[in-house]
Amino acid sequence: MLILGLDPGLGSTGWGIIRAEGNRLAHIGNGQIRTEPGMALARRLALLHGALVEMIRAHRPDSAAVEEVLGNSNPQSTLKLGQARGVVLLAAAQAELVVGEYHPSIVKKAVVGTGGADKAQIQAMVARLLPGVRLAGADAADALAVAITHAHHLASARALLRRAS
Amino acid sequence: MLILGLDPGLGSTGWGIIRAEGNRLAHIGNGQIRTEPGMALARRLALLHGALVEMIRAHRPDSAAVEEVLGNSNPQSTLKLGQARGVVLLAAAQAELVVGEYHPSIVKKAVVGTGGADKAQIQAMVARLLPGVRLAGADAADALAVAITHAHHLASARALLRRAS
Repeated sequence: MLILGLDPGLGSTGWGIIRAEGNRLAHIGNGQIRTEPGMALARRLALLHGALVEMIRAHRPDSAAVEEVLGNSNPQSTLKLGQARGVVLLAAAQAELVVGEYHPSIVKKAVVGTGGADKAQIQAMVARLLPGVRLAGADAADALAVAITHAHHLASARALLRRAS
Repeated sequence: MLILGLDPGLGSTGWGIIRAEGNRLAHIGNGQIRTEPGMALARRLALLHGALVEMIRAHRPDSAAVEEVLGNSNPQSTLKLGQARGVVLLAAAQAELVVGEYHPSIVKKAVVGTGGADKAQIQAMVARLLPGVRLAGADAADALAVAITHAHHLASARALLRRAS
């Protein structure tokens, strides 16, 4: 199955798609959608949405996942992030994708093995788990990390169901 | 011209449309789009977006306006509001509406005459400025208040341009 990971942001939204078959993962694609700070907010959101719709149409993923957001102490950045995240979740829902949400520490644990990993460790592990990947940037790496987390959780859930039946 | 005012929220988004001709205002429609807290977030955003697209298609406004958001001390509510606001701004941009943004104190001043007005005063003044209006609720009243503010600002800008030319 194809799994889409998303790392929403107004200036840059990362996306990454992997193929997961049992415990085997393969990289399909990754990228970052950027919008210019000088543009009107509504226009930026429309560009972000349009690019996401196109990317989803091109790759036809089966499932999607995104990091939970904690919000930070700066209300204006939380608001900005929220606005981008709303548009990202909308694009997924419009493609009839169910969107899994994972706490950042769960993603770090799934990819690096510890909940306190930094950006560089995540990029290194994503590159190791998906041989041959060329990362478009840190946001694309984060998006692939969420996709990998989702793949692990789906595989565990399937194993649990197999054992239970 | 038809002016659409919007008051975004995940649980309830208010909207209101007025006709503005010079300084004369008339009520066209208002309502509140609600989504259920029990639903998945992405699904709620898709429902909100779908209802907005339909409303905009039905009324074909010429211009739109929304309150600026300051964000509050609770990051989770700011994030929630941001997600809904992103989808609301997107729907407006997709209809090729330019969206004016007004600070809440500007809206209060335009409608009530003082920057420190409360919800009840806003509702009372909206009802007085738009005779015969039946308000769908407080969020719809806020949306109409933003539309009225936008109408005033557009009228002032036009008057200024007339005097300058």
